[in-house]
Amino acid sequence: MDEVSLSEPGSPAGCQTILGEIPDEEQILPRKDYESLDYDRCISEPYVEVLEGMDNKKAKKYEAVHWMMVFAIGVTVGLLGLFVDFFVRLFNKLKFTVVGDSIEKCSDKGCLSLSLLELLAFNMTFVFIASVLVLIEPVAAGSGIPEIKSYLNGVKIPGIVRLRTFLCKAAGVLFSVAGGLFVGKEGPMIHSGAIVGAGLPQFQSITFRKIKFDFPYFRSDRDKRDFVSAGAAAGVAAAFGAPIGGTLFSLEEGSSFWNQALTWKVLFCSMSATFTLNFFRSGINFSKWGSFQLPGLLNFGEFKCPDGDKNCHLWTAVDLAFFVLMGVVGGLLGALFNCMNKNLAKYRIRHIHPKAKFIRVLESLLVTMVTTIVIFAASMLGECRDLSTPTAHNTTLAGSEDINSTIRQFFCSNKTYNDMATLFFNPQEAAIHQLFHQDGTFSPVTLSVFFFLYFLLACWTYGVSVPSGLFVPSLLCGAAFGRLVANVLKVKLGMDIYSGTFALIGAAAFLGGVVRMTISLTVILIESTNEITYGLPIMITLMVAKWTGDFFNKGIYDIHIQLRGVPLLEWETEVEMDRLTASDIMETNLTYVYPHTRVQSLVSILRTTVYHAFPVVTENRQNERDFMKGNILISNNIHFKKSSVVSRAGEQRRRCQSMKSYPSSELRNVCDEQSAAVEPSEEGEDLLQQMLERRHAPYPNLYPDQSPSEEWTMEERFRPLTFHGLILRSQLVNLLIRGVCYAENQSSTNQPRLSYAEMTEDYPRYPDIHDLDLTLLSPRMIVDVTPYMNPCPYTVSPNARISQVFNLFRTMGLRHLPVVNAVGEIVGIITRHNLTHEFLMAKLRQHYITI
Amino acid sequence: MDEVSLSEPGSPAGCQTILGEIPDEEQILPRKDYESLDYDRCISEPYVEVLEGMDNKKAKKYEAVHWMMVFAIGVTVGLLGLFVDFFVRLFNKLKFTVVGDSIEKCSDKGCLSLSLLELLAFNMTFVFIASVLVLIEPVAAGSGIPEIKSYLNGVKIPGIVRLRTFLCKAAGVLFSVAGGLFVGKEGPMIHSGAIVGAGLPQFQSITFRKIKFDFPYFRSDRDKRDFVSAGAAAGVAAAFGAPIGGTLFSLEEGSSFWNQALTWKVLFCSMSATFTLNFFRSGINFSKWGSFQLPGLLNFGEFKCPDGDKNCHLWTAVDLAFFVLMGVVGGLLGALFNCMNKNLAKYRIRHIHPKAKFIRVLESLLVTMVTTIVIFAASMLGECRDLSTPTAHNTTLAGSEDINSTIRQFFCSNKTYNDMATLFFNPQEAAIHQLFHQDGTFSPVTLSVFFFLYFLLACWTYGVSVPSGLFVPSLLCGAAFGRLVANVLKVKLGMDIYSGTFALIGAAAFLGGVVRMTISLTVILIESTNEITYGLPIMITLMVAKWTGDFFNKGIYDIHIQLRGVPLLEWETEVEMDRLTASDIMETNLTYVYPHTRVQSLVSILRTTVYHAFPVVTENRQNERDFMKGNILISNNIHFKKSSVVSRAGEQRRRCQSMKSYPSSELRNVCDEQSAAVEPSEEGEDLLQQMLERRHAPYPNLYPDQSPSEEWTMEERFRPLTFHGLILRSQLVNLLIRGVCYAENQSSTNQPRLSYAEMTEDYPRYPDIHDLDLTLLSPRMIVDVTPYMNPCPYTVSPNARISQVFNLFRTMGLRHLPVVNAVGEIVGIITRHNLTHEFLMAKLRQHYITI
Repeated sequence: MDEVSLSEPGSPAGCQTILGEIPDEEQILPRKDYESLDYDRCISEPYVEVLEGMDNKKAKKYEAVHWMMVFAIGVTVGLLGLFVDFFVRLFNKLKFTVVGDSIEKCSDKGCLSLSLLELLAFNMTFVFIASVLVLIEPVAAGSGIPEIKSYLNGVKIPGIVRLRTFLCKAAGVLFSVAGGLFVGKEGPMIHSGAIVGAGLPQFQSITFRKIKFDFPYFRSDRDKRDFVSAGAAAGVAAAFGAPIGGTLFSLEEGSSFWNQALTWKVLFCSMSATFTLNFFRSGINFSKWGSFQLPGLLNFGEFKCPDGDKNCHLWTAVDLAFFVLMGVVGGLLGALFNCMNKNLAKYRIRHIHPKAKFIRVLESLLVTMVTTIVIFAASMLGECRDLSTPTAHNTTLAGSEDINSTIRQFFCSNKTYNDMATLFFNPQEAAIHQLFHQDGTFSPVTLSVFFFLYFLLACWTYGVSVPSGLFVPSLLCGAAFGRLVANVLKVKLGMDIYSGTFALIGAAAFLGGVVRMTISLTVILIESTNEITYGLPIMITLMVAKWTGDFFNKGIYDIHIQLRGVPLLEWETEVEMDRLTASDIMETNLTYVYPHTRVQSLVSILRTTVYHAFPVVTENRQNERDFMKGNILISNNIHFKKSSVVSRAGEQRRRCQSMKSYPSSELRNVCDEQSAAVEPSEEGEDLLQQMLERRHAPYPNLYPDQSPSEEWTMEERFRPLTFHGLILRSQLVNLLIRGVCYAENQSSTNQPRLSYAEMTEDYPRYPDIHDLDLTLLSPRMIVDVTPYMNPCPYTVSPNARISQVFNLFRTMGLRHLPVVNAVGEIVGIITRHNLTHEFLMAKLRQHYITI
Repeated sequence: MDEVSLSEPGSPAGCQTILGEIPDEEQILPRKDYESLDYDRCISEPYVEVLEGMDNKKAKKYEAVHWMMVFAIGVTVGLLGLFVDFFVRLFNKLKFTVVGDSIEKCSDKGCLSLSLLELLAFNMTFVFIASVLVLIEPVAAGSGIPEIKSYLNGVKIPGIVRLRTFLCKAAGVLFSVAGGLFVGKEGPMIHSGAIVGAGLPQFQSITFRKIKFDFPYFRSDRDKRDFVSAGAAAGVAAAFGAPIGGTLFSLEEGSSFWNQALTWKVLFCSMSATFTLNFFRSGINFSKWGSFQLPGLLNFGEFKCPDGDKNCHLWTAVDLAFFVLMGVVGGLLGALFNCMNKNLAKYRIRHIHPKAKFIRVLESLLVTMVTTIVIFAASMLGECRDLSTPTAHNTTLAGSEDINSTIRQFFCSNKTYNDMATLFFNPQEAAIHQLFHQDGTFSPVTLSVFFFLYFLLACWTYGVSVPSGLFVPSLLCGAAFGRLVANVLKVKLGMDIYSGTFALIGAAAFLGGVVRMTISLTVILIESTNEITYGLPIMITLMVAKWTGDFFNKGIYDIHIQLRGVPLLEWETEVEMDRLTASDIMETNLTYVYPHTRVQSLVSILRTTVYHAFPVVTENRQNERDFMKGNILISNNIHFKKSSVVSRAGEQRRRCQSMKSYPSSELRNVCDEQSAAVEPSEEGEDLLQQMLERRHAPYPNLYPDQSPSEEWTMEERFRPLTFHGLILRSQLVNLLIRGVCYAENQSSTNQPRLSYAEMTEDYPRYPDIHDLDLTLLSPRMIVDVTPYMNPCPYTVSPNARISQVFNLFRTMGLRHLPVVNAVGEIVGIITRHNLTHEFLMAKLRQHYITI
């Protein structure tokens, strides 16, 4: 289950092509070693005990704690935003003041190389720190959105919601942004927010033990995932001042079902984050505590026509046609960006990641150096424009500084200013404001050069091992493109348009082309502009950009998720997939557990398999025989019956095959005969794999408790198994470690009972079977697993269509979905890996071949 | 299944109390004659054939048609909004011009009674027309939101999405609003939008037959419900200029699961509606085609501080405390409003609805008369204030008119104006603008009187049989309250606050207290103000108002839903409910069908039962015996096994009881013995009911096809039944009408096959069994139902907890959920009625008693 490695280094296909673009496309398959989160509750007896102890008062108390937690998460994320913002500003101010002074001095004296060195020293120091922080915790690299997306989708990626990751990410992003790299702080903010969400309620459970154990809900994947949703939403809300957008982000990326109460809490969390940040920033910047004037870290300022100009419109119906075209271009540019970045990422995986870790630091420093030199050189070539030209229509910038104060005069004589330096020698947010709101400032050449440089450098930067968001670089890049279009239309064609709108639409188009988000991005952008009338143009642009881009490749986050081999589940399956049924895709090679099993056999099963869940079964040999008979008598065209019998046979065949590896089995011949008759030869490789897995996993040799045994006859081995429930590996290990078992001569009622709190105490890091001290356990004791198993998980019929199975699995956030036939026998199990697009496609191809 | 009547007129309890307030609270139970919508797809063989015929090209074509439909719905709803807006304005202008002129003339001459008569004539004519329209289609009365909420929740209410309803509602709302009643046009807009959503794609399917039959998705409950979501969202979007709010509205009220693709379409639909309306209104009002300046029908105008006033803030942190208090008061007022309206509605149901229809028209006219006279009288008592006082800070109103143009001078001398008349002698939207944006215009006395009158009259009006929204009256009422608070704080306490914000918050508080919506209302209000910084105060106010109000009663829409006896499913079940399992709540009294059944028995079953679905089963007597034996041998403490056996016994008991009513059954004694042994006597009433139902429903007497028969022995009657699928009544009738059957001596392969198109042709009004011409059918022919049944619906175990069952049922939008035990036998079925709050509460009480 964990054998498929990420990029299969053995295969030379990828290296043979020069650009390595398409041929190795298929190689990156979802890895099977990622675990799933379980959103479904396991309603075992200890849980029922908790339920019995619940009354309305306790439920209300729990609810109140939940609200408090959500509020605490919001406030914490808001304060985090404040912290990041403060230090980024501080570092930037320090840097630009020192370097700016130096440049102004040196422009006269001719010591510009000194200024460049100063800038280089600043940037490389900052980036070095960021890069070292990422070395400590490699998961902190990048924007974090792919990781959060995966987590909310239901995949547990090790380390992404740990405290160490949080510290490295939050501190790292300060330095990578201050280091002048073309990265944003929004993605890392979202990731940090998600970690706060995951961590705070757990912290609470340690501090206020009393509250927790009354209703131990917080210690489950379900609650953790809910809190992570809230935290991620708060991150978006703080970053963009977009609480609704944040809520929709976590819905779009995470929720499989619409839970009104949860959504309401998430919205509250987002609001708390936005307004905490707003409160403190307004207070600090204007010294007017109590007012709320600076919503998010990234704010687009106010788009409005100059007062009194009745003919000015932000946009008209005619402009929509241009917006559609810009959407197409944005989609194309985004697809190009993603394609380049994907190949770069593959190159990094193949050639940089396997090497010593410091190589990554060197790469970061190289990127920084190149970026810094390019910025400096480009700024020297910028156009000097008359200072009287800029007439910003709104004199006060929402970002607390006068927009004109961010204009740079470097390398230009008095009364003129340098348009390129204005864009490059400012924090990125200020540059975005310049592009959105400064009238007639930038020459087309400057915009083109800026766009081109930014495009290439941002593409190179994303993937370097520093915390690095992608929103702001994309927006800036797109805004330059939009502003360029506006310049052409306004100056060359003399159209009466509002440049700011075009810059905004350009930004939306490019960002949409890169990230391919839909609903949430629309709302985030609308909220960032604080102008509801931009709804339609932004939506249409994003829609067109997404459609255009999807024609070529996936969104950047999905690409990086795919490169990591995360088994992400899409929103829906394609219609075509419905030609398959559950029995076509299920895992039939199962290891069972009986309701009462000897310690010895449990240990053996746990040590020799890697499965995370085991069906609890009893035998019913008679059942099948009757059923077959009855079935034939009653109806000869209930097709589904036949197919379920067939799949059952297939399962037996496979079990038989896997047994061939048993060293001393006299049954081998029987198996060979059977399998020769029916076995299709297509899965030879797979079989070998199974054999290797199985070699050291013979069934334990125990009789009285009816565990499967090697000494059984064939008939015994293949008898039908009635499904009673599902028990998780972690639960079994827990039972063994806590010595939950009874002696042979006792009744199972003598078995010690665990409470729900004891069952979940070790969440989320349960002990491994290898941590178990076998000397403490008597191997002949018997464990009754029935009180601790999940007695009625959702199940599907083997004939259920893929869309049904997929909807159930994804919507309910399941981890294991047993496939149970019409007479209650388990015939297979479906996990996330059986539902990934790649797996389904492979099965569909098989299906077509067999037809 | 359809016996429980709405208010049980026989019971005198309700009439004995004077106010009829609490004692009859419990009487209104969910009615069982509402059908559910089925959101799950029935993957029968005809459907699979359609799937096999699907390729990616067809899927894309279908997708494109879907988008076009959604766009068409949006545009149509936008145009509908334009139509409503245009005529309401026209009628209002006509009325107020004529009456206004008359008043100004008569103030001098002293012929005011003539003016009053003029006004009365106008209003009563308009309301008479509205009321007559509602007589034609009674479902068109009221706001329509309860109906749409029910529909989106999955309940089919007859007539609510018909064309006739649409025409009556859309035309009726013009006249009821123009008639001066205290009603809004927003609710009816939402309802009309939903009807457009339901109707347009069906219309398409008639006109473009070719497109439809390629992929007959549009003819199913699932697709219809999706389109209704889109239409309702478009309605909200057009009414409030709030596309995001509209989308969230349909999510909050309807969607059980978050379907990203659908949500994106709904948002697109909402955007289309908003901007279609915006385009045409801007074009017509400003004669500047192509600009977008008038987002929704109801718009709150721009909240902003006067330019240059640096100390003015829309709100500060200190104000939040007042907002919380206002939320509490709003919640209390809302609860009072709902309580009064509920009793009024009950009175109407009991005393007005049973009477002749014209009584309802008379009631509408009475309300109109009183309203008109009160308006007139109150206006005469209004305060005359100096004309120089009003200094609206924003001179242009987003609503296209100068805010000062709506000031009325009636009954006042020159240079003064009448503040009460300004509120009453204007369209409600203008009055809201006055309260939000006009500085220092209204005296506290005026505001109090206005609030009081409006509160009472709006409460009386809601429920009168005219199309009547509740949003605008609530907003207006709440705005007056908020403005009053602002006046007190500003003038009496001298605080530096922004009155408009307080009016807005007051409106939010009262509206929130009345309707108790959360997420969508927050977003709608934020979008209507076009000011993102109002997010936090609005959210907190709504939250507090909801909490306060929920302490006393439900939201007004839920109250009306409850009064209609609609079996609405809540969002979640309470934690306490998890003490029950599926077997506690399931319907055990099932009527089965065999895979191959004679026409005669099918007709008999269909004619003598009212069930909408029948499990398809085969027998497996042997199975249970073995299972019981094996079970005892293997484990004596798998509790769930026992309970499933118990519930099976219970089912048999109940079946036995129902059999007692069979006239000539020699088995009765057997039954009596059995039931005497186990029967608890608590459900005597219920039993009688069952007997009555069953009297004319003996199992048909047919042997060879093994249908259940009266001549069976007890043992035969109670044998376990393996579950194979579910077939709907409509499908069975369809099969019979189309003559799908084969002769006894033939193979079932000779049976004619129906295509998916033929199966769904009659959607949504399938023929009744009584429409079937029996002479065309040979009673001894056999129907093979297996190709047409749903072979693998989702099922649950009898031991599943209520929360699991509820989540599955609600999230997947199911209609029937079979309960299947561990060996694949059907033991019961769960429908919507088994999951309503009232039913669960009753079962929980039973559960406590038995413990």
